[in-house]
Amino acid sequence: GPEFELKCINSIRALSADMPSAAKSGHPGAPMGCAPMAHLLWSEVMKYSPSNPEWWNRDRFVLSNGHACALQYTMLHLSGYGLTIDDLKNFRQMGSLTPGHPENFITKGVEVSTGPLGQGISNAVGFAIAEKHFAATFNTESHQIFDHFTYVICGDGCLQEGVSSEACSLAGHLGLGKLIVLYDDNNITIDGSTDLSFTEDVQKRYESYGWQVLTVTTVEKDLKDLRAAIASAKAATDKPTLIKIRTTIGKGSIHEGSASTHGAPLKPDDLSQAKKHWGLPDKSFTVAEDVMSFYQERTKAVEGKFADWQKLYSEYKSANPEKAAELERRFNHELPSGIADALPNTDFANAQSKATRQHSQACIGNIAPIMPELIGGSADLTPSNLTALSCSKDFQKDTPEGRYLRFGVREHGMAAICNGLFAYGGMRPFCATFLNFAGYALGSIRVSALSKFGVIYVMTHDSIGLGEDGPTHQPVEMIESLRSMPNINVFRPADSNEMSMSYKVALECHETPSVICCSRGGLPALEFSSVEKAMMGAYTVLGEEIELSATDLILVGSGSEVGKCVEAAAKLAESGIKTRVVSMPCQELFLAQSVEYQKSVLPGNIPTLSVEASAEHGWHRFSHAQIGMTRFGERFG
Amino acid sequence: GPEFELKCINSIRALSADMPSAAKSGHPGAPMGCAPMAHLLWSEVMKYSPSNPEWWNRDRFVLSNGHACALQYTMLHLSGYGLTIDDLKNFRQMGSLTPGHPENFITKGVEVSTGPLGQGISNAVGFAIAEKHFAATFNTESHQIFDHFTYVICGDGCLQEGVSSEACSLAGHLGLGKLIVLYDDNNITIDGSTDLSFTEDVQKRYESYGWQVLTVTTVEKDLKDLRAAIASAKAATDKPTLIKIRTTIGKGSIHEGSASTHGAPLKPDDLSQAKKHWGLPDKSFTVAEDVMSFYQERTKAVEGKFADWQKLYSEYKSANPEKAAELERRFNHELPSGIADALPNTDFANAQSKATRQHSQACIGNIAPIMPELIGGSADLTPSNLTALSCSKDFQKDTPEGRYLRFGVREHGMAAICNGLFAYGGMRPFCATFLNFAGYALGSIRVSALSKFGVIYVMTHDSIGLGEDGPTHQPVEMIESLRSMPNINVFRPADSNEMSMSYKVALECHETPSVICCSRGGLPALEFSSVEKAMMGAYTVLGEEIELSATDLILVGSGSEVGKCVEAAAKLAESGIKTRVVSMPCQELFLAQSVEYQKSVLPGNIPTLSVEASAEHGWHRFSHAQIGMTRFGERFG
Ligand SMILES: [Ca+2]
Ligand SMILES: [Ca+2]
Repeated sequence: GPEFELKCINSIRALSADMPSAAKSGHPGAPMGCAPMAHLLWSEVMKYSPSNPEWWNRDRFVLSNGHACALQYTMLHLSGYGLTIDDLKNFRQMGSLTPGHPENFITKGVEVSTGPLGQGISNAVGFAIAEKHFAATFNTESHQIFDHFTYVICGDGCLQEGVSSEACSLAGHLGLGKLIVLYDDNNITIDGSTDLSFTEDVQKRYESYGWQVLTVTTVEKDLKDLRAAIASAKAATDKPTLIKIRTTIGKGSIHEGSASTHGAPLKPDDLSQAKKHWGLPDKSFTVAEDVMSFYQERTKAVEGKFADWQKLYSEYKSANPEKAAELERRFNHELPSGIADALPNTDFANAQSKATRQHSQACIGNIAPIMPELIGGSADLTPSNLTALSCSKDFQKDTPEGRYLRFGVREHGMAAICNGLFAYGGMRPFCATFLNFAGYALGSIRVSALSKFGVIYVMTHDSIGLGEDGPTHQPVEMIESLRSMPNINVFRPADSNEMSMSYKVALECHETPSVICCSRGGLPALEFSSVEKAMMGAYTVLGEEIELSATDLILVGSGSEVGKCVEAAAKLAESGIKTRVVSMPCQELFLAQSVEYQKSVLPGNIPTLSVEASAEHGWHRFSHAQIGMTRFGERFG
Repeated sequence: GPEFELKCINSIRALSADMPSAAKSGHPGAPMGCAPMAHLLWSEVMKYSPSNPEWWNRDRFVLSNGHACALQYTMLHLSGYGLTIDDLKNFRQMGSLTPGHPENFITKGVEVSTGPLGQGISNAVGFAIAEKHFAATFNTESHQIFDHFTYVICGDGCLQEGVSSEACSLAGHLGLGKLIVLYDDNNITIDGSTDLSFTEDVQKRYESYGWQVLTVTTVEKDLKDLRAAIASAKAATDKPTLIKIRTTIGKGSIHEGSASTHGAPLKPDDLSQAKKHWGLPDKSFTVAEDVMSFYQERTKAVEGKFADWQKLYSEYKSANPEKAAELERRFNHELPSGIADALPNTDFANAQSKATRQHSQACIGNIAPIMPELIGGSADLTPSNLTALSCSKDFQKDTPEGRYLRFGVREHGMAAICNGLFAYGGMRPFCATFLNFAGYALGSIRVSALSKFGVIYVMTHDSIGLGEDGPTHQPVEMIESLRSMPNINVFRPADSNEMSMSYKVALECHETPSVICCSRGGLPALEFSSVEKAMMGAYTVLGEEIELSATDLILVGSGSEVGKCVEAAAKLAESGIKTRVVSMPCQELFLAQSVEYQKSVLPGNIPTLSVEASAEHGWHRFSHAQIGMTRFGERFG
């Protein structure tokens, strides 16, 4: 009944408010406001399996306003995901399972790392694309093994961010009917009332994107309206739904409705009065037995659904052994066999000058047919990025079996959606734009790196050699920006072999995103390159026959500059200067090699000059002098 | 009459198509589609002064789809801005006045650098804010010296980008009635039809932001509807207007209406048939005399308006000498006197541990009252960034005299709007967020640097020492990302003196944007710091009395790590290791010093250890060993 419902909700509020109080920092306001939604989702709406958090057909849940994570930890505790009361007490402590924002790689049941606003809701678009694609490509008439919803809770902040505008416009275009967003409409942001800066008509905006928008005016009295709205959302199969839910931030606090409850723990008095008012004991981190056992019953019920699905899947597997094997391979992050053989090798004798973006095109063209989990697209630069999939049609509203995504001019949304595709499992997303516009997507690229999502970023037009578009389009600092990010491999291959290496390593490293920088214009093939040598990150591509002790100079470069180094070395040889050329397609791989190997390539005591048409910032560790870009709009070299 | 109008429009089309043909690269499609809008704006609507392109009260024009720049160059040529036919023939050539995308620092009459989609329309929001603010603070009842519109032409791409969603939502909130956007609705993007990815209801979306949206179904027959729409737009004083104008990309080409006209010159045959069809001679770079003289007459007319305004201003100046002097100072990029004296100095004897964000707050607090051109705000983190202006109210719809901007959770739009505020003239914009979320705004920060806009970015919570928010909020690579960008000064001050230096230099360098990185937590004052020493970018803050020849070790750090280095040096001294400590608040300033000075601080032959809670990438040029961050979510040190 509504009374017990309210008890559950208030228990969730109490536990969620206890956490920041114990940590002396954190955000109680949003969890207290959103508790009714969370209760309804976990206790009635969502299917999930605490015993198998990776269940393919679970409903996906994203807390896009990640600062409200105390709420998510509370729900994971109640539902039996293994978070204990002690874990909750360690909220926001270093090394705990309950960090200050949800981290997918730390806490079971957390799908994606949220906190940077706008990311979670955009990831969810990726989830909904993935579900639709898997359903279209694996379900059979008798066995709907993929058939679930993606639920999001988000706040005003997420909806103000441009990344969510991009992703949600695309979600409407794609008619992602199984995406359901619960919008915590509390009229409050950190600076104060939303009247200060956010007075747009959100309902109308989401309708303009092609979404269904429903309004729930209260969740305080009972959950009837919200329950009905979710039912309508599930019934609308051709469009995503945003449910605008009026809530009160910090509900229960004497400061409820005020920004002051957003980012600081409730005062002890205030928390006491709230619990008293709720009819709960004035104790921290306690949950009434009836509430706990209600949730335990619920967990049993959802585990039952999981068991039903397992039965379904086992029938499916008998009937469709190849499809099942394919799925298991994909969700286990195993590559299909034959990838390495499929990647092109340089045919030096017959090589013509080609742009490395063409080599990238050849890699994608060769692997896509044998790697059905490769899915991706470009931010409206397909003819320039050369990322079209000839083996597949577009993923569109009525062709969900397609694997090519038309992201539109939406770089940030594109990257965030790819994070969602990766997080879903069974997918290897790639996406493309001009390297310079990686800067538009950096917020999401960083989330790829942090979250260990092996998204592949194909970034073409990677230097001033991009033609006549001028300095607004010329990357200068972007390569260094990406290299200085942890857990991301930045490739800048110089020829076909190095490009094949880049794809090979990118595909093999599923916990590390990759950026593959490609030239616009033609580059010569390197006579002595090979995939194997390039896998070391840097190797001597010319002059290896010169003893190190006899070497006068080492030129080290990447991508379009390696050929220039080779030319220069030939000229220097004419003047009797014995020069080695080192190609460095990936600094990160090179830095992971043994010191011994590193010294054999770049010993440090031979004059070393680096050459890259990019900021010289990161090169000082490898070279004594640098030729690079120090201004915008220069010609290079 | 309509016939001559059409002749003018087709002449604009011809000239705009000649440019890419001569350059063998570029974008004819959008100029050919947008020529009717441009003709109407320049020939009837806008006020401008080719003889005084910096006229304060000119209408501002932004070509947000900057790839259509051939159109803008054509109009600047026709209007007498000094672009010659030879300049047009040099389209997209290195060093020409007609680069591949419009550059404000190259071509007279170009207000902002566009090309990166979504930036221009967002800059225009800054223009409209500036106009409203100047009108509110300088106009008198008898003298409306600021009273102009801001016009934008943009395409689908600009409207898909999240940055424009952010800026336009805010523009609606602020009721910027003098902002008028002409949307080139041609149903085409690079990948093909907008049906591929962009099927949202743009009209409804902009209405949801609080804009007036008008629709013009054709501009091919005559300009009646567009003329009427612009009149309605001007009449709506309380909200910005978007005019959705159905056009045909590449109008006149045999491929009109197709994406193939977007990014490649017309074939010679095609251009010939177009000119023939238009009744124009089949010659390149010619303009009929009647068209040219029509535009010359128009220029005379607008120059007449400028002369009227000059008369108005001279009366204003007589009546309001102080206001006029203030305006002239501001538009001449002269700082008010007393800024340096107003900035705080460290009172070491009484210094308490303070966060550098508090020192930043003190700087803003001291200079804002004497520097009325300082205008800015935070992306909804005012209480954390400490950027509130106590001397001014908010800039809101009904308080345009206010100088504090509530940007909402819109980092990218915020930075783009600040670029517009700076480009307007007479303003020194600042804006703030957590350093980690500079990554959301990087696309616009880069435009600040490229365009020589001295925007001041206050970025707090600048390291892992930001508290318990966890790795999603901890900057690791961001400082290095910013440092590797040309023409931007990245400050990471360690105490009050260094903070004052940062603001002093930031304010003085109006052609270089600045990022001022601030700590969340308290740092000790440095006994031997000073504003003057800090202005060198790096200086010996401890152990200067130790001869270099006797120095065993140099520790070099920035911001929150300098105090730690000082502590470490004291411990090392106990063990007899003579250690100097170098504080490096700004690498860029240090690298601009003489080699002699640099060697006196960091000679290179003394073991040098750098310490910064950030990616170590850029430090190899300064130190032999580095303590830095190499992963996400570490504790530091
Ligand atoms: Ca809110
Ligand atoms: Ca278009």
